[in-house]
Amino acid sequence: MSDIKKYVVENRERFINELVELLKIPSISADPAYKNDVLKTADAVMKRLQEAGCDTVEICETPGNPIVFGEKIIDKSLPTVLVYGHYDVQPPDPLDLWTSPPFEPVIKETKIHPEGAIFARGACDDKGQMYMHVKALEYMIKNDALPCNVKFMIEGEEEIGSGSLGWFIERNREKLSNDVILISDTGMIAKDVPSITTGLRGLSYVEVEVTGANRDLHSGLYGGAVANPINVLAKMIAALHDENNHITIPGFYDKVVEASDIERSKMAEAPFSLEKYKEALDIEDVYGEKGYSTNERNSIRPTLDVNGIWGGYTGEGAKTVIASKAYAKISMRLVPDQDWEEITALFKKHFENLAPKGVKVKVKPHHGGQAYVTPIDTLEYQAANDAYVESFGKAPIPQRSGGSIPIVSLFEKELNSKTILMGFGLDSDAIHSPNEHFGIWNYLKGIETIPLFYKHFTKLKQQE
Amino acid sequence: MSDIKKYVVENRERFINELVELLKIPSISADPAYKNDVLKTADAVMKRLQEAGCDTVEICETPGNPIVFGEKIIDKSLPTVLVYGHYDVQPPDPLDLWTSPPFEPVIKETKIHPEGAIFARGACDDKGQMYMHVKALEYMIKNDALPCNVKFMIEGEEEIGSGSLGWFIERNREKLSNDVILISDTGMIAKDVPSITTGLRGLSYVEVEVTGANRDLHSGLYGGAVANPINVLAKMIAALHDENNHITIPGFYDKVVEASDIERSKMAEAPFSLEKYKEALDIEDVYGEKGYSTNERNSIRPTLDVNGIWGGYTGEGAKTVIASKAYAKISMRLVPDQDWEEITALFKKHFENLAPKGVKVKVKPHHGGQAYVTPIDTLEYQAANDAYVESFGKAPIPQRSGGSIPIVSLFEKELNSKTILMGFGLDSDAIHSPNEHFGIWNYLKGIETIPLFYKHFTKLKQQE
Repeated sequence: MSDIKKYVVENRERFINELVELLKIPSISADPAYKNDVLKTADAVMKRLQEAGCDTVEICETPGNPIVFGEKIIDKSLPTVLVYGHYDVQPPDPLDLWTSPPFEPVIKETKIHPEGAIFARGACDDKGQMYMHVKALEYMIKNDALPCNVKFMIEGEEEIGSGSLGWFIERNREKLSNDVILISDTGMIAKDVPSITTGLRGLSYVEVEVTGANRDLHSGLYGGAVANPINVLAKMIAALHDENNHITIPGFYDKVVEASDIERSKMAEAPFSLEKYKEALDIEDVYGEKGYSTNERNSIRPTLDVNGIWGGYTGEGAKTVIASKAYAKISMRLVPDQDWEEITALFKKHFENLAPKGVKVKVKPHHGGQAYVTPIDTLEYQAANDAYVESFGKAPIPQRSGGSIPIVSLFEKELNSKTILMGFGLDSDAIHSPNEHFGIWNYLKGIETIPLFYKHFTKLKQQE
Repeated sequence: MSDIKKYVVENRERFINELVELLKIPSISADPAYKNDVLKTADAVMKRLQEAGCDTVEICETPGNPIVFGEKIIDKSLPTVLVYGHYDVQPPDPLDLWTSPPFEPVIKETKIHPEGAIFARGACDDKGQMYMHVKALEYMIKNDALPCNVKFMIEGEEEIGSGSLGWFIERNREKLSNDVILISDTGMIAKDVPSITTGLRGLSYVEVEVTGANRDLHSGLYGGAVANPINVLAKMIAALHDENNHITIPGFYDKVVEASDIERSKMAEAPFSLEKYKEALDIEDVYGEKGYSTNERNSIRPTLDVNGIWGGYTGEGAKTVIASKAYAKISMRLVPDQDWEEITALFKKHFENLAPKGVKVKVKPHHGGQAYVTPIDTLEYQAANDAYVESFGKAPIPQRSGGSIPIVSLFEKELNSKTILMGFGLDSDAIHSPNEHFGIWNYLKGIETIPLFYKHFTKLKQQE
């Protein structure tokens, strides 16, 4: 057994318990009511980095939530790995669908995780995956196995658009200088099919408000005679897709880089069962853009989804009202080379044009980020590949993900280094959903694999 | 000055204060949390009827909220007026749009009501209008001016579909026997344009639920690949109207009685300013079924409106989720001879057919009622006409209303008597909306006019 494997086995319980403690703090960045918990979590992350052996750790103030920065510099002439992660979590609602409270972590066995999985909001996204790096660092320092320098940048606004990260990076380019950025905030195909994420979708998130009359109206006295903002909003949302589920925003697809036939046929080779997919979601059929497979639809194609809608009377019973206002939160996942700010502007213009006379429309951009695709013929990818081969006994599959980590393209632009996305979560982990969990096997496998990346990366860099 | 005018002037303050007390109890029938307040209100109505001089008053249990029944029988050979009203109120939300708390009545002057109006939920609909009848009765009894028998049936479920009223009437036909039913739960055209409601629309109220995957999903990982219940619901709602705003449900218009050209040109003569209408609602334009005027759209044409919609993340900030479920409350206003149960069934069938594979749809009928049109060449209408002439100095205009009082056609069928709808509210009273109010002038004018109906009705009946 390798040294790191031994260390993981010996410290298994402690590793789990430490993560459980971190998961108990409800660091929900979207809800101002949890501001104190967000700060408490930043503090906890700082302490854990100190204990793991960082020389310097600090809580860096930003216009938003603080960023925890830590480093261990062993020799300035050696390469530097910058670890990025986030300590904030998604809101847990709808609460009634959780089988145990989201901030009271429990370990339960599942079909996919017979070794048990930790159930809690943030278990996988991203406290669990971020903490793998803290424990990997602890191993390397305690066992004199750290081959290079390491920096940590753990932020608290990832789930609300990383609003302060650009501000922070601009002001700290020197402090953050590095040779590669390492992130675990994505997934892998299966426990026996390791994969590295080589592409992420971009994002544009907006909120829309449709206003009809200046007050709620009685649907008997006004029904049929004035625009009903909810009916109008439904019509406008419906008009955003055509009968083939293409998005109708003029110019939306102009800059989309179409995947080549070769790339598409390679994607089609990835292990995937449509039957199992439908069964796991309990749906009769999938639904999406005509001419593309499920795996293409959720990775290489841009999409538009309503994430929330509300208006009128939503309580018990019946109320015959025509609401004055109706609202929706809408997000678009983008692909290379769509520019999120341009797409946001195109959406705004189109949506405003869709409104009939008789309503007023406001489109409020929330946040966004660019899509990202990384080549696989780089030293950085090779190092990650070698780490997986040593840890899993097989080469990882490069995979484009449908999710977004908007800051990845920002890193490349601002810090001038490549990013490696080593994700250890699974699709079934229910991130952003009730009953989020993270397999203990995956958590420990991550801790085991990360030091191998440091080893191979430093070796390859020195051979350069 | 007539006796009743004098009595109203002398008792003005007390009449207002008594109504204010009644308005303080939040008798919201739609919300089970207010059950106790509903019962308290029934109790208060009972006491007020006793004080006004009823011989018998009782709280009648039903499968739902109790019905208050009272009567004053002076001579069995004389005609009997049955007064119907309701003591329950609409939910007050959205609360933040009220300029004063909905259950803390205050008197404020408005442009239309320089004499002041009482602002509170239920001020007009229907506590205020119902209480006019209690005070009119008090006047008639105290001044020996009651020319006939009177019965009161005040229910507590009108705002949720009068679910127990049919049950109660079936079991109490003898007790409720009458010669005319008198209701004040509608409006009049303007303070100087008295009107009597001669038609009401029917209603079908349903709730729909669209389910996609068995759990909330991450919009990055699943976006574009599975049906999003909110997008699908929007599309289904949009499909309920065509480009001319006709309703697309097959069979929906089959039994609609088209208004004759004569009737339409008579309607067009009613005083109405489209400019003032738009200005009052702060809308750039009206919106509705092609080929019909605003006043036709909201009275003689059937309509379909979404009264509430909800699904996904509706809190502060952003959440990139694909909800498992989306919901809407939808109501249809119906006209003669549409049958509400048939329409509900047609809606259900059509809506289920609209659903694409990949979602499941549930349609839950709430409640409904038939449309109603009354002729104006009856003794009952004549009596009401004469009362208005005496009180307002001019004849009332017969008017079809867009609202629904589903029980009116039930009364006609079960109790075999005509209904007279003497409404004293105004369109601007904001019933079912924030800042509902009832003009003090209207309230007192109602109290003044009602005894005149008793007088003329009894006289005409005796001449028959």
